[in-house]
Amino acid sequence: MNKTLNPAHIAPPYKNRYSHAIEVSAGSRMLFISGTVGVRPDGSVPAEFAAQVDTVMQNLTEILRAGGMDWGDVVKFQGFLTPQGDIPAFAEVRQKYFAAQKPAMTVVWVAGLADPRWMVEVDLVAAK
Amino acid sequence: MNKTLNPAHIAPPYKNRYSHAIEVSAGSRMLFISGTVGVRPDGSVPAEFAAQVDTVMQNLTEILRAGGMDWGDVVKFQGFLTPQGDIPAFAEVRQKYFAAQKPAMTVVWVAGLADPRWMVEVDLVAAK
Amino acid sequence: MNKTLNPAHIAPPYKNRYSHAIEVSAGSRMLFISGTVGVRPDGSVPAEFAAQVDTVMQNLTEILRAGGMDWGDVVKFQGFLTPQGDIPAFAEVRQKYFAAQKPAMTVVWVAGLADPRWMVEVDLVAAK
Repeated sequence: MNKTLNPAHIAPPYKNRYSHAIEVSAGSRMLFISGTVGVRPDGSVPAEFAAQVDTVMQNLTEILRAGGMDWGDVVKFQGFLTPQGDIPAFAEVRQKYFAAQKPAMTVVWVAGLADPRWMVEVDLVAAK
Repeated sequence: MNKTLNPAHIAPPYKNRYSHAIEVSAGSRMLFISGTVGVRPDGSVPAEFAAQVDTVMQNLTEILRAGGMDWGDVVKFQGFLTPQGDIPAFAEVRQKYFAAQKPAMTVVWVAGLADPRWMVEVDLVAAK
Repeated sequence: MNKTLNPAHIAPPYKNRYSHAIEVSAGSRMLFISGTVGVRPDGSVPAEFAAQVDTVMQNLTEILRAGGMDWGDVVKFQGFLTPQGDIPAFAEVRQKYFAAQKPAMTVVWVAGLADPRWMVEVDLVAAK
């Protein structure tokens, strides 16, 4: 099991939505997951931001499963938002997927993503 | 050998240019490679975007080689483009370097890079 | 000990502030550290950029310590700057913390961070 690191004498993670760090034990296998976007199996992209985030999270769930892992094994979550994104809505949808052990996280606003319909892209590192 | 994960029941990777995820076996050694830019050995920077991408890819090839690895060992490719970048040209040059096993990939548009001559920056994780 | 890779026949790392790559041996334990910002233990955020960078670096030092590591174990440094950031000031403060072995590094300008007071966010990978 990966280990959560949240030293008590610095400011806590922003709104307690993530862990300051996750430690991966020697001898773990790891998954490096691509920047994943809100494209449904039929190629369509939800026009509404929260629905798009949910599609991203479902796609990531399937990719984790293909590697024999789940959200409890995620060590790093990296999110890129376009100006059409929304941080509270992103958090609200995303946090439902997290297990008891929250991953380390970086989220930034970027100038854009490869397809103008995409408002959010997330990549992950997972380990087990 | 790293393992490609492309679950069949979600949308395929964008234009099949990358893998949804790469699994790294326990007991691999890993390379973490810096954001690499299109600076030639003499310090010059190609003014043309495609030539700059090619210089980035050549530099990355040399860094991989210094670690005893090649493009078939790359597990994660992360690209940052400035507004002067061009996604189709980036893909066209980049994909020539990839081995049969395509890495996981994230590409985003950013506001800028450290030197205004740079239009693209790429970092890698590799494992063997 | 992680190993530095700086092939001699490509252009050196920008201003020699980082290493082209760091190799992590098989059998290392690893830390994945969140995008860390310049928030002090009391929740305040320095208004001045250099002070904010210093707070980021102190917070990262504490997180590394919680994992039994220090700056000599950092393999990858990823920095995101907002338009209010300043690359020379970032480098000046940051480099004081680095050990003899400089990490691999990526630094980009982004459109913004989650809280408008934040001008810089840094995440790390470390291994020992």
